Amino acid sequence: MIKLNENYGNLKDSYLFFNIKQKVDKYVAGHPGMKIYRMGIGDVTLPLAWCVIDALSNAVADQAQKGTFHGYMPECGMPELREIIAAFYNGRGVELTPGDVFVSSGASDELGDILDLFDSSGSSIIMEPAYPAYVDANIIAGRRIFHVTGNEANGFAPVPDNDTPVGDLIYICSPNNPTGAVFSKDALRKWVDFANLHGSIILFDAAYEAFIESPSVPHSIFEIEGARTCAIEICSLSKTAGFTGTRLGYTVIPGELKRGGLCLNDMWVRNRTTKTNGVSYVLQKGGLAVFSDEGRREIMENIRIYKQNARYLTDALDRLGVTYYGGRNAPYIFMKCPEGYTSWESFDLLLNEIQVVGTPGQGFGDAGEGFIRFSTFASPEDTKEAALRIFDLLTRMKG
Amino acid sequence: MIKLNENYGNLKDSYLFFNIKQKVDKYVAGHPGMKIYRMGIGDVTLPLAWCVIDALSNAVADQAQKGTFHGYMPECGMPELREIIAAFYNGRGVELTPGDVFVSSGASDELGDILDLFDSSGSSIIMEPAYPAYVDANIIAGRRIFHVTGNEANGFAPVPDNDTPVGDLIYICSPNNPTGAVFSKDALRKWVDFANLHGSIILFDAAYEAFIESPSVPHSIFEIEGARTCAIEICSLSKTAGFTGTRLGYTVIPGELKRGGLCLNDMWVRNRTTKTNGVSYVLQKGGLAVFSDEGRREIMENIRIYKQNARYLTDALDRLGVTYYGGRNAPYIFMKCPEGYTSWESFDLLLNEIQVVGTPGQGFGDAGEGFIRFSTFASPEDTKEAALRIFDLLTRMKG
Repeated sequence: MIKLNENYGNLKDSYLFFNIKQKVDKYVAGHPGMKIYRMGIGDVTLPLAWCVIDALSNAVADQAQKGTFHGYMPECGMPELREIIAAFYNGRGVELTPGDVFVSSGASDELGDILDLFDSSGSSIIMEPAYPAYVDANIIAGRRIFHVTGNEANGFAPVPDNDTPVGDLIYICSPNNPTGAVFSKDALRKWVDFANLHGSIILFDAAYEAFIESPSVPHSIFEIEGARTCAIEICSLSKTAGFTGTRLGYTVIPGELKRGGLCLNDMWVRNRTTKTNGVSYVLQKGGLAVFSDEGRREIMENIRIYKQNARYLTDALDRLGVTYYGGRNAPYIFMKCPEGYTSWESFDLLLNEIQVVGTPGQGFGDAGEGFIRFSTFASPEDTKEAALRIFDLLTRMKG
Repeated sequence: MIKLNENYGNLKDSYLFFNIKQKVDKYVAGHPGMKIYRMGIGDVTLPLAWCVIDALSNAVADQAQKGTFHGYMPECGMPELREIIAAFYNGRGVELTPGDVFVSSGASDELGDILDLFDSSGSSIIMEPAYPAYVDANIIAGRRIFHVTGNEANGFAPVPDNDTPVGDLIYICSPNNPTGAVFSKDALRKWVDFANLHGSIILFDAAYEAFIESPSVPHSIFEIEGARTCAIEICSLSKTAGFTGTRLGYTVIPGELKRGGLCLNDMWVRNRTTKTNGVSYVLQKGGLAVFSDEGRREIMENIRIYKQNARYLTDALDRLGVTYYGGRNAPYIFMKCPEGYTSWESFDLLLNEIQVVGTPGQGFGDAGEGFIRFSTFASPEDTKEAALRIFDLLTRMKG
């Protein structure tokens, strides 16, 4: 009798977004026609940039003609796309070669797949609150998990100290989902030094880097000296260029990253050539447009709109004097719940009283209790109205 | 110090297509302007069907407008696509529900990823000659491999007997890559009975099912009674609809497939929701068109052209009286090498004498030695000329 992967039995049921949907659906059924302000799920709403649409359309047209038709793509990515991404990093002062860059179907896919490089007897440091898939992917792989707590005392950007468990893998997401907090250069340097000291490897989730506006906040772990010997960076065009439903990402594994004489870049090449036949030609052409000058300009215009959304919310919270994290360098705002309310109670309160949907912080681990996450990806009109309603409700509650 | 996945050290260097390319490049450099007939790599060459192009174009246009823009897709696939695939199976007399069907980025991705469901202490039966990624993915996962030999005695479609090792996973590819052999209903029934008896699970690679023309040859393992409790089917649109560079596939895991009380369909849902954010909206819309009536008609027209290519080659081999497998229900022809030639020697002979590129059978495992594979995906003109040249060369060698 075949033995299944019994680690699945250790997964907790994942009902966060399912429960949110159930509650919202029930509310809508009881209040027909009532407008709901959805700022729960972190999904983008603005259309793709025009130059990306053009590139995708042209690539589709290429597939219609014999002379331009493309079959199998190189497993690690189209050379032009690997080159333009490396050049994009070079432009930020990070030296990469095209061979350091792997094109992927997206960050969520890579965050799971990359565990294939490591022995499953190992351990992972996960800083919570966290994207739930970090924990679940590690449970499926049978890895031990060390939880490191993000909280108000460390501004949701914990750094290692003498009590930090020596984990083999260290997940860092900056700008952070769900808290919107960012890790400073100094905080990242501490993790890089820790990783190099102990031979650990950092998995740096840079999915939200395009939202950074403070010049001092690193966009890439490779801006930190020493990171090339201890880090893998996993990136996505989902939030950068609105690719949540289009799918494309990239992963950076510097050639210098070695452990026990093995080069992780070589191993990942071998993994990809075994386990994939590359990413769609059509999507990679769209990705090329994202990194063109016109593409960068257009996507930053969309990000500007999401940032204005953030400002509607943070202005309201600032005026109220409510504590929150994020919203400046990140598309998420992590708001402290009203006194005496848990995160799920706050969720119910906002839904029932002002028809605003957030995500309870507890859904990102116990460290998220006491907070509620707002995404800034809804329409400007809805976000503005939601901000007004939050302001009014919390003002009434104080008064 | 982190411990890497040491199984990578057990992989053999994979130089098959690299070596072929080196040899061809060297020949071309030495013979400038000489026309080469490339029938080595199994990559399609005909453009996508028009209705698929239309669907892809419309989906790209959807991503350009706010009202039609699509963000995150359901992780297991667009409901309409899961439905139309289930209906496609139903039309062939195989009962499936949409929930049994998972949309994927392609068969190669799934063949690797699916191992996540099984304990890595297990074993896999791989029938050789075989697609090299079967072996490599199992080595990376640390699984034990039992090689079962396909050969002329069993028509490259081995069935279990008393000496067959009881493997936990059983890979079956029919129509087969590289041999082009097909497993009869009776042969598949023997494997299904074997799997149900021992609690094993069959991974059925149906990537070439669209090439089956003999009415008695099963397109799906689920045409066999008892398969729903012992099989997973992994399919691809790569060869069916020319999607090698466009990327889309699907995987069927019947709800009845359980081991030790665990339902593999539930586990795969959990895996996908953890490790992916779904497949591109654009590509899934293309997939929907493939399964439309018009799509089926158009893709069968392309397959008809590839089948004519197969006929050019098999006619030549039939007239020569050369032994070969495949070519009728499969896009591959596995030709016996000329007397006294190994598969690499045959490769060199064909390249140097008649500028025809095949794939040495030895590249698919030692069981492939003595054969050379021709793909039927080149242009009709090139294939016709290659068939003539093979006929002339082998006639000269006999004479």
